[in-house]
Amino acid sequence: MSKHWVYAFKAGQADGDASMKALLGGKGANLAEMSSLNLPVPAGFTITTEACVHYYQNNSELPAGLVDEVETNLAHLEKTTAKGFGDVANPLLVSVRSGARASMPGMMDTVLNLGLNDATVEGLTALTGDSRFALDCYRRFITMYSNVVLGVNHHSFEDILDDHKDRLGVTIDTDITAKDWERIIADYKAMVKSELGRDFPQDPKDQLWGAIRAVFGSWMNDRAKFYRKMHDIPEDWGTAVNIQSMVFGNMGNTSATGVAFTRNPSTGDSDLYGEFLLNAQGEDVVAGIRTPQALTKKAREDMGERSLSMEESLPEVFAQFKTTVDTLENHYRDVQDVEFTVEQGKLYMLQTRNAKRTSKAALKIAVDMAKEGLITPQEALMRIDPGTLDQLLHPMLDPKADKTVIAKGLPASPGAASGKIVFTAEDAVRYAAAGEDVILVRDETSPEDIKGMYAAKAIVTARGGMTSHAAVVARGMGRPCVSGAGEMQIYAERGEFASRGQTYRHGEIITLDGSTGEIMKGAIRMIEPDFSEDFHQIMAWADDYKRLDIRANAETPADARTALGFGAKGIGLCRTEHMFFDEDRITAVREMILADDEAGRRKALAKIEPMQRKDFTELFQIMDGLPVTIRLLDPPLHEFLPHTEEDIAHVAETSGIGADKLYKRTKELSETNPMLGWRGCRLGITFPEIYESQLNALFNAAVDVLEGGGDPHPEIMHPLVATQEEMAKLSALTHDVAKIVFAARGKTLAYKVGTMIELPRAALMANRLAETAEFFSFGTNDLTQTTFGISRDDSGRFLNPYIEKGIFEKDPFVSLDQDGVGALIEMAVAKGKATRPDIKLGLCGEHGGDPASIAFCHKVGLAYVSCSPYRVPVARLAAAQAAIAANSQ
Amino acid sequence: MSKHWVYAFKAGQADGDASMKALLGGKGANLAEMSSLNLPVPAGFTITTEACVHYYQNNSELPAGLVDEVETNLAHLEKTTAKGFGDVANPLLVSVRSGARASMPGMMDTVLNLGLNDATVEGLTALTGDSRFALDCYRRFITMYSNVVLGVNHHSFEDILDDHKDRLGVTIDTDITAKDWERIIADYKAMVKSELGRDFPQDPKDQLWGAIRAVFGSWMNDRAKFYRKMHDIPEDWGTAVNIQSMVFGNMGNTSATGVAFTRNPSTGDSDLYGEFLLNAQGEDVVAGIRTPQALTKKAREDMGERSLSMEESLPEVFAQFKTTVDTLENHYRDVQDVEFTVEQGKLYMLQTRNAKRTSKAALKIAVDMAKEGLITPQEALMRIDPGTLDQLLHPMLDPKADKTVIAKGLPASPGAASGKIVFTAEDAVRYAAAGEDVILVRDETSPEDIKGMYAAKAIVTARGGMTSHAAVVARGMGRPCVSGAGEMQIYAERGEFASRGQTYRHGEIITLDGSTGEIMKGAIRMIEPDFSEDFHQIMAWADDYKRLDIRANAETPADARTALGFGAKGIGLCRTEHMFFDEDRITAVREMILADDEAGRRKALAKIEPMQRKDFTELFQIMDGLPVTIRLLDPPLHEFLPHTEEDIAHVAETSGIGADKLYKRTKELSETNPMLGWRGCRLGITFPEIYESQLNALFNAAVDVLEGGGDPHPEIMHPLVATQEEMAKLSALTHDVAKIVFAARGKTLAYKVGTMIELPRAALMANRLAETAEFFSFGTNDLTQTTFGISRDDSGRFLNPYIEKGIFEKDPFVSLDQDGVGALIEMAVAKGKATRPDIKLGLCGEHGGDPASIAFCHKVGLAYVSCSPYRVPVARLAAAQAAIAANSQ
Repeated sequence: MSKHWVYAFKAGQADGDASMKALLGGKGANLAEMSSLNLPVPAGFTITTEACVHYYQNNSELPAGLVDEVETNLAHLEKTTAKGFGDVANPLLVSVRSGARASMPGMMDTVLNLGLNDATVEGLTALTGDSRFALDCYRRFITMYSNVVLGVNHHSFEDILDDHKDRLGVTIDTDITAKDWERIIADYKAMVKSELGRDFPQDPKDQLWGAIRAVFGSWMNDRAKFYRKMHDIPEDWGTAVNIQSMVFGNMGNTSATGVAFTRNPSTGDSDLYGEFLLNAQGEDVVAGIRTPQALTKKAREDMGERSLSMEESLPEVFAQFKTTVDTLENHYRDVQDVEFTVEQGKLYMLQTRNAKRTSKAALKIAVDMAKEGLITPQEALMRIDPGTLDQLLHPMLDPKADKTVIAKGLPASPGAASGKIVFTAEDAVRYAAAGEDVILVRDETSPEDIKGMYAAKAIVTARGGMTSHAAVVARGMGRPCVSGAGEMQIYAERGEFASRGQTYRHGEIITLDGSTGEIMKGAIRMIEPDFSEDFHQIMAWADDYKRLDIRANAETPADARTALGFGAKGIGLCRTEHMFFDEDRITAVREMILADDEAGRRKALAKIEPMQRKDFTELFQIMDGLPVTIRLLDPPLHEFLPHTEEDIAHVAETSGIGADKLYKRTKELSETNPMLGWRGCRLGITFPEIYESQLNALFNAAVDVLEGGGDPHPEIMHPLVATQEEMAKLSALTHDVAKIVFAARGKTLAYKVGTMIELPRAALMANRLAETAEFFSFGTNDLTQTTFGISRDDSGRFLNPYIEKGIFEKDPFVSLDQDGVGALIEMAVAKGKATRPDIKLGLCGEHGGDPASIAFCHKVGLAYVSCSPYRVPVARLAAAQAAIAANSQ
Repeated sequence: MSKHWVYAFKAGQADGDASMKALLGGKGANLAEMSSLNLPVPAGFTITTEACVHYYQNNSELPAGLVDEVETNLAHLEKTTAKGFGDVANPLLVSVRSGARASMPGMMDTVLNLGLNDATVEGLTALTGDSRFALDCYRRFITMYSNVVLGVNHHSFEDILDDHKDRLGVTIDTDITAKDWERIIADYKAMVKSELGRDFPQDPKDQLWGAIRAVFGSWMNDRAKFYRKMHDIPEDWGTAVNIQSMVFGNMGNTSATGVAFTRNPSTGDSDLYGEFLLNAQGEDVVAGIRTPQALTKKAREDMGERSLSMEESLPEVFAQFKTTVDTLENHYRDVQDVEFTVEQGKLYMLQTRNAKRTSKAALKIAVDMAKEGLITPQEALMRIDPGTLDQLLHPMLDPKADKTVIAKGLPASPGAASGKIVFTAEDAVRYAAAGEDVILVRDETSPEDIKGMYAAKAIVTARGGMTSHAAVVARGMGRPCVSGAGEMQIYAERGEFASRGQTYRHGEIITLDGSTGEIMKGAIRMIEPDFSEDFHQIMAWADDYKRLDIRANAETPADARTALGFGAKGIGLCRTEHMFFDEDRITAVREMILADDEAGRRKALAKIEPMQRKDFTELFQIMDGLPVTIRLLDPPLHEFLPHTEEDIAHVAETSGIGADKLYKRTKELSETNPMLGWRGCRLGITFPEIYESQLNALFNAAVDVLEGGGDPHPEIMHPLVATQEEMAKLSALTHDVAKIVFAARGKTLAYKVGTMIELPRAALMANRLAETAEFFSFGTNDLTQTTFGISRDDSGRFLNPYIEKGIFEKDPFVSLDQDGVGALIEMAVAKGKATRPDIKLGLCGEHGGDPASIAFCHKVGLAYVSCSPYRVPVARLAAAQAAIAANSQ
């Protein structure tokens, strides 16, 4: 019955293991696992996520028993380390870190060196013989604790430090003597007291509980909330708290701290990759304040650096480290991202986790590992987040384009982007909201900048390495990033930066290439990406395992070719209205709309028909042997008319149609709710000659292609059907036109007629629709709009507040609402099959490119999904994952 | 296996009976029934509706066997009548009439005197000794047959007749001699031949089959289609054809023809009521060409007429007639509408059917018959069409109002109306479509005028009696009508009429009172109607049998009082936004909308809150002890702002709000699809202070009423909920405000919190919504819009074509779509009850006043429906009928 709130670990022994991430958080579970593997992990213990959940469910009260369990484990830790918590002579110092089930880098708070006070700092001095070191630890602890736990602004500490530096005439921290640190620490404490009205806590136990509560509290800070929203992490998971004995990478030049990846997280190359700093504490590497050194000699040489690598400067420890991380990669069967510290020549592992990686690296690593036999092809497929494939598929800089490089930094996150320069996260958010592409340019980024980074197309920093905050977060988000572009001098407050003797202002356009680290002036021409072998291997495996076909939404020959190149198995949605907007056609379309009667409409349609026939011919040729689903005219007619008085005057002048008539008809056709108006098949029912003409064009086009030796597979889709009577009439019209065309041409070919299911009523009546519809294609954009009663165009004012307030988990226009809209789809699938067991079922809304929605489509038994051409590979992979996940259940 | 296409009848014997209306049509079934009752029915036979259906399903081919069956029956008829079809010496003449399952008066075509030709007309002369009579019959037959069967315009005959009259110097038909009729007939035949290129058919068999096909064909004429649409009669029922031996009411002064009702169809008084014409054929009465005489002495005296009644002029036949119709009323247990002919002193019954009646008469007849023990109270309730109750509930002329009577006619259909004078059906349709109230003024009406009569508020005719076309149709439609206002001279082509020395022009306003027959100048003040005892009796019986409660949609004290007077059991929908439009409030509302932040909004809301509190107090007081469902603010905020530049300038001037700010905010808030926009609870979630203020007002109002000794039952309804998260948040907000108000006031009271189900997703997720919603009210207006994806505002362009093309059986905004929207309602009911078995369920869309929709609500187990105050009695009756119908199954 008794529940454990605390799990201990020490080298060779642990209460938990790697499978217990939900309870111990990722960090805690992996610390336990590493301990069990007998790797050198500083001893400690983990407070479970359940304790945090309990804390939030009970009005910030700690669960009963927690205090006792912490006391007991602390006593064990004292025994293991042979130190005493608060022992003046031999003080035990600990770190207190958050650790959630999913990694949330930089989102949560950490306190190091806890246990120091005015007395134990003396003990640390005595033990290490280094009063400067001890005092440096103490001042760091005061700063960090005051900021994280007590809520004192870190600028207050920086101001005091700056004043002392001015007084002393020094510029860097390492030039400050122990004596001076003592005075600074005294000022720190005085400031804290004056700000808070009480002394900085001297009792280590008080410090510890303050820190534990602060970690719990950090789960609900704004950055954490935003990160969770962005990464779909549920709010009720809570965070664990890891309390671990301190080791020091800042105890002189045989000490060091660093981070490493067992393979290159940017390229996927299977070389140990990372950075370290001699005589530093862990936070120094991540914060990007000092530029770190390479781990291996090869990496150093590749980068053309001089400072010795860890392999060269600490060869023995490096050898032990290399063995350790190889063990970890083999044990976890995935690339590991580790943190380590060397304390006076002794290695300690502080963390291991599966490494975040770029899409390109993810592909390469998955393929390499599968080929190495470390994982299976199915596992390789499951390792890749389909959403991130996107960045591989978008245009990159045209190598032949002229470019003026204005600065160069580290290639921190691949991809290229152009946009206007902004210097603050707030500006990035504001300009992006207004539809502008922006590049966020910063000295360095911090967790506060997260929203701005998300809003920006790309990120540039002047400082920090490949594992700096900016680099890690940008890679995670799929944003191109160049970090550590030290030649840039950034004057954010003036809204400009200088580089190579030139000044660039807020709003000017730059381009960056996150794969080379180059920053260029203006917008550079982009080209289609060149796909790696790994990409093709993954796609081939995906095709082996997926059951869903992937089609594309395309209406132009260019889009159709792109889609085919990306592996689309046909067109799932060709929107014919897009063919009506061409400049040489719109006049005829308007003539049709302005006609007084059917005869007038037929006359105008006769001009459009040959052009549509040519369009369809091309699409059938490109998609030879594959289905092409053609949706007949859908938008309300007023969309084709000019709307403002100026536009009307202009159109009248250029088209020769009278302005009065144009104005009158535009007014007549205007609608209060065009989304719910005279559109879709309602046009085809009221003006059958419109659909008749389109059908004529498409059947003649199909026969043209057939006669040319091609193999056209038209599927005719009627939009916005709500009743079986509509479907029956439209089916009959379709078959009638087909019969006439086939008779006239003396040829016949197979085709299908069906409907979009995009209204709730269509889903409810699907059994009746299936009487005459041979296929259903779920139009989930409109189905979402009508099921929720939300106009996508007008949802801006409440959709974001709704997501922020937790009413929507996700934007239902991005990821299918499986509970509501999904229920209608399931109903329609069942009803459609009941009437017509071999009915063809697909989906052609935006959701067709969303992995979660694709998994749903697989689950409910659709035959295909159709998405935009660039999303086709994403969808192929997601479909394979859905099939693999379903089989493994 | 062999199917009969023909059913015979003759006095004392019939193949069919009254229960076979579907097969034999109403007329045929009742002719059979009357024959079986041994009443004097001219012998004949009926071709079934199935033959007509077969005809339409088989490309206008007659079913196999029909010709033989008709031949056989014709032979029997010859035997029964001892005449021969085409027998020159003793010719059998027949009438050929349509007869559908439901009565469609004047909609279908009829041919009399069929069997006459150049030879048999001589036989008829010989038999009757009256060549003028025989020739009159023949010329009538030629005219009717040529028009109905051969498609010759009747004006062509009128022109020939007029020429002859001019030539002869006579004005009325009866002054034309036999000799002259011969010449006219010769001209008729010559004209037919020249128009059609062939002779008028002389073979009686050809005549017969031509007529049968014409009756089948008349089922699909425009008038019939329109009538069916108006009365919800399915197109696939078809019509029967009745072929009956002719009897003649025009064989001198012991002959007559007439129509009668066993009780007064206008008032319901239990006096024999009707009209007859001596020496006339049946069509003369209905056509309103001669003004007919009363049946009874009493009626004649009441009307102050001189021409003798039938009771006086044909006393023996009258006595036989009276016994016959009494038998019929007792047999059918309902008021009968009969047609009869007296041929040289011998009575023949040509038709009987349940009589159409005014709402007032329907009430009285049902109540009287129940009290007489002829029917049960349940039957009495089932006898009344709830839809027609409406006309009793609307305002009537204020007896104290000044009025200038400009003409007087017959009180043909009760109710009062004012409107602009129009003289053609086309004008009536056109003006009504533009939103004008019009009164259709005609010499007499004909079936071609049906659309215009429907469009008009009321109808006036200068000619015709109480059973003229105008009178019958107007009563059926519930339109007030004054017929036979002979003092009016109508000059339709000049657009004016004259009466009592004054001229009235097209577009001038008149008022008529269909209960008195008065026509008045200008618009007369109306008052609330005074309800009859019968009305109260029916309502009392309805309340005994119904299970649904009826509430009203009301927000003003006046509406609430009206609703209470009509028997509403509370308010089912109080739309609070209506309280925001008052002139003294709208400025504060706009201030709220224009506020820059929550504080600004709260400041403006504080001004509105006391006014809302007063509104709610009044409603709770009026609805003391009854539930009042208050819907929180629903429309998008831009509805409260001015829209045109002029309006903005005006509002800016009067309100003191800057025009720029107004303009900017109006633009900001404008929406592409406001129906699907930022409205309903989306306002309450994003700006909770709005709902908070409304809740404050309503809970304080409830406590005010409680303190005053009242018994308020507030039910708080949150609109447009789509997710359980919204519902949970809004429930919590409601309970929070209640707690605070109750604590502050030191009082507490019961209330409910719930939601409208008006989005498909709400229905789909009803189980989750019911976790925090204590009631559901189906908002079927919006639910219909979103389920169909049809904006009511924009549906005009396709809704009518859709109904005409048979895609919609009925306008789904008028009568609930039980298949689609109904499926969602059933789903929500089941899901809601699964979570909360005692959940309160109601409906508050426009459908709450529609009988078919109410029957659905009863069936799916709702607790109440809410409708507009005037519809409450309709709904009470419909609810009783639904319960009775359900129990009898």
